[in-house]
Order: sequence, then C-alpha cells, then structure tokens
Amino acid sequence: MSQAKMFDLAQATPFINNVKQQHPLVHCITNDVVQNFTANVLLAIGASPAMIVAKQEVADFVSVASSLLVNIGTIEDNIAQSMLIAAKQAQQSQTPWVLDPVAVGPALPYRTAIAHQLLAFKPTAIRGNASEILALSGEQSCSNGPDSQDSTEQALEAAKQLAQKYQTIVAMTGDIDYVTNGQITYRIEGGDIALTKVTGTGCSLSAMVAAFIASSDDTLLACASACLMMKKAGEQANKHHGLGSYAVSIIDKLSLFNSHHG
Amino acid sequence: MSQAKMFDLAQATPFINNVKQQHPLVHCITNDVVQNFTANVLLAIGASPAMIVAKQEVADFVSVASSLLVNIGTIEDNIAQSMLIAAKQAQQSQTPWVLDPVAVGPALPYRTAIAHQLLAFKPTAIRGNASEILALSGEQSCSNGPDSQDSTEQALEAAKQLAQKYQTIVAMTGDIDYVTNGQITYRIEGGDIALTKVTGTGCSLSAMVAAFIASSDDTLLACASACLMMKKAGEQANKHHGLGSYAVSIIDKLSLFNSHHG
Amino acid sequence: MSQAKMFDLAQATPFINNVKQQHPLVHCITNDVVQNFTANVLLAIGASPAMIVAKQEVADFVSVASSLLVNIGTIEDNIAQSMLIAAKQAQQSQTPWVLDPVAVGPALPYRTAIAHQLLAFKPTAIRGNASEILALSGEQSCSNGPDSQDSTEQALEAAKQLAQKYQTIVAMTGDIDYVTNGQITYRIEGGDIALTKVTGTGCSLSAMVAAFIASSDDTLLACASACLMMKKAGEQANKHHGLGSYAVSIIDKLSLFNSHHG
Repeated sequence: MSQAKMFDLAQATPFINNVKQQHPLVHCITNDVVQNFTANVLLAIGASPAMIVAKQEVADFVSVASSLLVNIGTIEDNIAQSMLIAAKQAQQSQTPWVLDPVAVGPALPYRTAIAHQLLAFKPTAIRGNASEILALSGEQSCSNGPDSQDSTEQALEAAKQLAQKYQTIVAMTGDIDYVTNGQITYRIEGGDIALTKVTGTGCSLSAMVAAFIASSDDTLLACASACLMMKKAGEQANKHHGLGSYAVSIIDKLSLFNSHHG
Repeated sequence: MSQAKMFDLAQATPFINNVKQQHPLVHCITNDVVQNFTANVLLAIGASPAMIVAKQEVADFVSVASSLLVNIGTIEDNIAQSMLIAAKQAQQSQTPWVLDPVAVGPALPYRTAIAHQLLAFKPTAIRGNASEILALSGEQSCSNGPDSQDSTEQALEAAKQLAQKYQTIVAMTGDIDYVTNGQITYRIEGGDIALTKVTGTGCSLSAMVAAFIASSDDTLLACASACLMMKKAGEQANKHHGLGSYAVSIIDKLSLFNSHHG
Repeated sequence: MSQAKMFDLAQATPFINNVKQQHPLVHCITNDVVQNFTANVLLAIGASPAMIVAKQEVADFVSVASSLLVNIGTIEDNIAQSMLIAAKQAQQSQTPWVLDPVAVGPALPYRTAIAHQLLAFKPTAIRGNASEILALSGEQSCSNGPDSQDSTEQALEAAKQLAQKYQTIVAMTGDIDYVTNGQITYRIEGGDIALTKVTGTGCSLSAMVAAFIASSDDTLLACASACLMMKKAGEQANKHHGLGSYAVSIIDKLSLFNSHHG
C-alpha cells in the first residue's frame, strides 16, 4: 500500500464551501452528551441538523435527509433499535451515512455487538479514535471508555484493513488524523491537544463528516476536509481564558471559517 | 379580521418584570438537544426550570408547577406517554401550558398524530414556526425537518384559524413574529437572522412563553412579550466573534435585560 | 457532636492536585439537562468522564471506572433500572460512588422511592441541597422541584443523622456548604449567588465529588475539597457580562484553577 499523503487546506476549501452552499440536512442519532454541541457545530458550518430518534420516524426521515449520523455513545435498547432501522434505510435509499462507534471494545460487549450489526448496513464512513478503530477491526486496544489511549499511527494498518473489509472510509482521528479507503490514505496534522479536553469535539466531527459527504461525490476527500476543518478550528480557537471559552471559540471559528486565511 | 398591531417594548415591560418578580416554576418536557440551553434561558429571565419526565411523576408535578412546556422535538414512545399525561393533567388542574410542535408535518406522521392528541388537551398557547403552524392547521407546507421554509406572513391566516379552532393563542415566529388569538393579532419585528443559526432559540422561546403566561392573566400580551424579549436579546447579542459567542451572548442579554434600555 | 470546622483552600490543594495527576475515569449516569456541562466540568478539573447508561453495560463499566455518579434528575423506568444495577455493582466492586438525589421529597414519591433503594447500596457520598437532604432523612422540607428553599444551616442536624444512618458522607451545598460524616463536619463559605442561576452547577459538583473520592483515601476531605473548588470557581468566574458568560467562565476557572492563587 502507498504512503499516506499530506492533506492541506487548499484541498479542503471546495468541500468546505460546498457545505456552506448546499446546507445539507443531517439526520443525527447521537449521544445525550453532545446533542447541543453537535447541532451548533452543524449550524456553524452551514449544515442543518435534525435529531429524529423515534423508531416510527427514523426510516421516513433518513429518506428525506441529505445524510445520517449514527453515534452509539449513550446507546440503550430503544435507541439501538432506531439506529438499526435508520442504518438499514440509509443503505436502501443510498443516503450517505457515518458510524461513530464510541467506546467499542472488549470492555463493552453490548455496544460492540450493535456496532457490528450496524457495520452490516455499510456505512459510507466510520469516524473514530485509534482504540475504537482497533476494536472494530478485531485488534487489541489498551483503552477503557470513550478516550483513546492508542496512537493513530500504530493503528493505521488496522484502519486500512477495516476500510477494505467493509468497503468504507475510515476517518481515524487523534494526534494525527488518517483518512483512508484502504488504498489511498490522507494524513492530517495540526489541531490542538485542548480539543481532547472539550466533550463532543470528536462526536461533532463525525456529524461534520456526515455533512461533508452529503455535499460531495468524492467521499474520501470530503471526509478528509471535515477532519482538517476541525483541526484548523481547534488551532485557531482561543484557549487562553480556559476550556469553557475554548469550547465556545471552536464554534466561533467554524462559523467564521475562511479558507483563504485558515 | 382586523390588521395585526405592532407590539413594542413598552407593552412588554410589565410582563418581563412580572417573570423576574414571580419566579414561575416551569415544568419542561422538552427535546434532548435543548435541555441545557432551555434551563439556562429560563434561569436568565428569572424563572425556575424543572425537567421532570417520568410517567409516574409528570401529573404530580404539573399540579405544583406554575406552567408546563411540551416540546416534541425528540419524541419517542416513552416521552410521548409522559407528554400526554402531563397535558391532560394541565387541562384538569388549569395549569397554563405551551405546545411546541417541532417538525410536525406530512414527512413525520408519528409526531403529527401525537401533536393532534396533545391539542385535544387545549394548550394555552402554541409556539411554532410557519411550517409547523401550517401543518397543524392542515395547510400545505414546503418544509422538511425542524427548520421552516415558509414565511410567517403567508401563514398568518392559518395561524388565526388554528387559534380559533382550538381557542388558543398561536405564537408563530420567524422573520416577523405573529401572536394571535384568532381575533387580535400582534406583529413583532426585529431580531437577527443569526438566531436561526443557534440551536434551541425557538425551543427556549417556547419555554419563555410558558414562564410568561404563568405570571400573567393577559395571556395574549404575555406571549407577545416573550417573543419580543427574545427578538431584542437576539439583536443585542454580540455576533462579531462568531456563533458560539453569539449563543452565549443571547443568555447574557436575557439575564441583563433592562426594559428601559432595550 | 462537635462544631463544624472551617475548611480552606490550603487543605483542598492536595486533593485538587490528585485529580489533575490521576485523571480518574468517572462513570456518570446523570440527568439529560446537565450531561454536556458535567462532562466539560470533569474534563476541566482533569478527570475523564464516561456516560454509559445501558442496563447491559453499566455493571461492566462500573468495574473498570474509578468512581460512579448517580444523579436522578430526569429519572424514568429504564434509567432507574440502570442506576440500581450500577449502584449494586459499585457496592460489590467497592467502586466509590456518589448519589445526587435531585428533587426528592413528598411531591415526587416515585424518585424518592428509588433514591431510598439506591441508598441501600451504600453510596460513598451524597451531594444535595438542604431540601433534598431533609427529604432523604425524613424531615419536613418546604421545597418543590429541584431548587432548595431551605437553609443548609437549619438542615445540618438532618445531614449528620443521614450520614450516620447510612455510614456515608453528606455534602450539603447552598449558601454555606457542609460536608459531614456524622462525627466530623466541615463548613465551606464563599461562592456566589450566581451559581444558582446556571443550570448544572450542583449536578456537576456531584460529578466532581465522584472524581475527588476516586483519587483519595480520605473521602471526607476529598468531598470538602470538591465543594471548595466549585465555590472558588464561582467566585472567580466573570459575571459582569451576564449569566451565559458566567457559565462559560466557571469552566474556564476550573480548568485554570491554581491552588496557590485560588
């Protein structure tokens, strides 16, 4: 397999602009911790969020939405049922969809089993940290809970294999982000360690990925563009006053994002 | 029917002050995206929020609350059951209550059916956007999901008819807000387009309407006052740093709202 | 019983530093209003939050977590079941755990009954306001809903009795905080009335207590340190721009907390 290619702002610009112009309607079935932050992140980048969760409604809504996000962070029986219905419908109606397999791994077999059921519906992309990607691909991880203790560099081969196995794109984020379809891999550097100290930056990036793939046919570059945009916002956001202001500033920077001065 | 009357800050002032003095206890059964923002908005205007959702508890709590908000944004079976119990109790105990029929319409028949069941319990007020008001009144809308693509001006007749049919007040918000009981209609201008780019401004306005009608016998003017206060906060809030800061600034402005300098 | 002892920053410093160094993994089963704020508060003080709620997962996760928080604010059947499983497991695996008995009292018998079932699993600490502590200890309270109308000073004897009865620590917060094991009682002054105007400050303090008791063997002093840290952050946070900025600033101050200049 070829080397990972550096991905930069010039490549991301048309994808960022596409979202702003097309206002994709992103159907989010996500966890209870990040609902508000995710909705505000989507609005900030120019997308339109809709959190529809009832098992009676999700299939209908997937059909009209531009894309779907499924994030299993606070999964339980009822929402798992809705997620499976939504993912199945997304596959049927060819609605692009993103799986965020929060905290999968041997410590939490219930969600890991559901994540594998969801994978059968062929997500367009998977966005996770190194531990989650390792767990999904059946490799050993050293993590408990939603925060990764693994490096993305070490997990890169697992990410590529996962992408190939499910014919999907894996956006594995961390210190360095890798976005791969198994053949081509992009590498995105930058960001800020403070991004890991604000809840929902990873989860809302998954929602951004859903918005980006809804607005473009080049899914691989669209995924990479979403990752790059979040890294840039994390760099630009003001952290001098503390983590509360930093979280607010991330949304500020996403909303004012100007590709020419990124 | 008569022309819509312009509603201004001088008229709203006593109602804004009433909320600050009476600290109404607002029982909120609302969607998962806006719970935190709604609670902080209510605290900012001087009300006391309480999110009580269990089917075993809602009837008891409606009886002691000053008012009730029912917002169907992330409705599913369990919470729908609680909403119906709460609305029924509100009608029985004459607790003023507000229905926010988020995203009703032909695309989502499940919630639309529940919204009609809730209507049977005679909400004191309905707060929605033009698409939702059109859908509830049986008119054609051009919207999918929670954001309205219809103008309030075009939906005004439907709003009046809805108000008359259910003997309620309809607060239909958008570029221009209209608050009507079917006979008398107030028109509220101002606000800021950025209000539509922060999640929960509409939903938390519905909670404000609940707080305002709990503190006043003149329900129509109370509803109009809540709408005007949110429009003013939206104008005053600082949007120069981006949408994250703008969301924070809306709560700032609500909490420091001074009717004399509004 | 002896007089309450004043607790100050010098005593809290080693406990605050312990959390920063040990990054305890705090398993939170908390209410829908404060999930995001709680997670960000925990990240700000150096802890690692994980919101795992499925009845299939909570026992497994309690076993690997450093501590557990159970907050019954938006309790309903499903989450109540998960809370009871988690608390039982915490007792079995000797995982320190905190009960936040939001809004217990005669107005809400359902949650009050569950709170008593949870108490049987011996929480390491209980964090509540005066009304909640009075209600749990069987005394008369004058409160409805989540905000306390009782003074902590008047409820102090009830807090001591509750601590003794369940061999636990009671952290009763309000104008003055009292932290007691029934024998020894610490008194914490300061804070800011504005803390009561931001939703989730009490609930996230309960999560902080969980983080602090995970990082120390002296549970009583750990609880008092968490309370003191929140009071100091509340004092230091900037409230001049309004309550929105104040909420953000609380997280800022927690994240930049410097014991030497506290």
